[in-house]
Amino acid sequence: MTPPPRQPPDNPLRASDEAARALARDLLAAMTHATLAVQDPATGHPHLSRILCQRGGDGLPLALLSGLAVHTRALARDPRAGLLIEAPPRKGDPMTWPRLSLQVLARRIEADDPALRAAWLARHPRSQLFLSLPDFAFWQLVPQSGLLNAGFGAAFRLGPPDLADKETPPQP
Amino acid sequence: MTPPPRQPPDNPLRASDEAARALARDLLAAMTHATLAVQDPATGHPHLSRILCQRGGDGLPLALLSGLAVHTRALARDPRAGLLIEAPPRKGDPMTWPRLSLQVLARRIEADDPALRAAWLARHPRSQLFLSLPDFAFWQLVPQSGLLNAGFGAAFRLGPPDLADKETPPQP
Repeated sequence: MTPPPRQPPDNPLRASDEAARALARDLLAAMTHATLAVQDPATGHPHLSRILCQRGGDGLPLALLSGLAVHTRALARDPRAGLLIEAPPRKGDPMTWPRLSLQVLARRIEADDPALRAAWLARHPRSQLFLSLPDFAFWQLVPQSGLLNAGFGAAFRLGPPDLADKETPPQP
Repeated sequence: MTPPPRQPPDNPLRASDEAARALARDLLAAMTHATLAVQDPATGHPHLSRILCQRGGDGLPLALLSGLAVHTRALARDPRAGLLIEAPPRKGDPMTWPRLSLQVLARRIEADDPALRAAWLARHPRSQLFLSLPDFAFWQLVPQSGLLNAGFGAAFRLGPPDLADKETPPQP
């Protein structure tokens, strides 16, 4: 078997194109949960967890987090985080499934806005329970940069404009 | 619906028990890939990616990484990483699927040991291709601590002895 073509070592990532932007938007639109990485202030290690996450009305990833969780306490100290958004599981090799790796800045917003709560519950009806608990809040996860992987040998660097809702025209 | 019982805010995690240790070992034994979080030296954000990973002969997570990848370059500068090991996808709510979040120290080892290569290929036969490329190497991911989540309301703090092979008796 012939090895796949490889990019030169100093530039293994491709510039984004319309197909990459469309795939990234599809992943964001379908998202119901994601993997979050925060900085653990006690150890300096990244700390990983699975979180409830959906695209908010402004097109930005929105998470519902418990203030008791390790990741939420870390975000309150350092808002720099990573977010991995994966396509729903399918057959075959998981290394070839599309996924979008974002670097985000986290910003806490109160969970008492009725419109926000209603929009969240439309996609996550089981969250009714958590919205009734005082320690849960919404967090906006604002993308700073992104890397889209559509399988081995197809990785694209994306900027915030590439990740905006498709109503927003991509920036040059 | 009654909210689930909640731990007090200053101690939301349970101490490990034999059932938690057994579940963690099962997740490690079944692993073929995982989610890695490294520190991006350019931004200070955690950076997430999906990697090939299996339990090595010594029981420690072992990854096969390309030297061209963003995550590998970051690990070479800062070996502190996070690793999320998830059960294979099943039906129902992904927030209730078991997963093991480890904080690990990464250590590169050369990929030219025939026994190591043979053991790797037994689980990952498609890696033959990558082992023939000069930029791929094995990385040992040595657990420093772990957090096992078996669904909402069941999170256990695990130490390195809890994560050892079951041939190794757990430490008190």
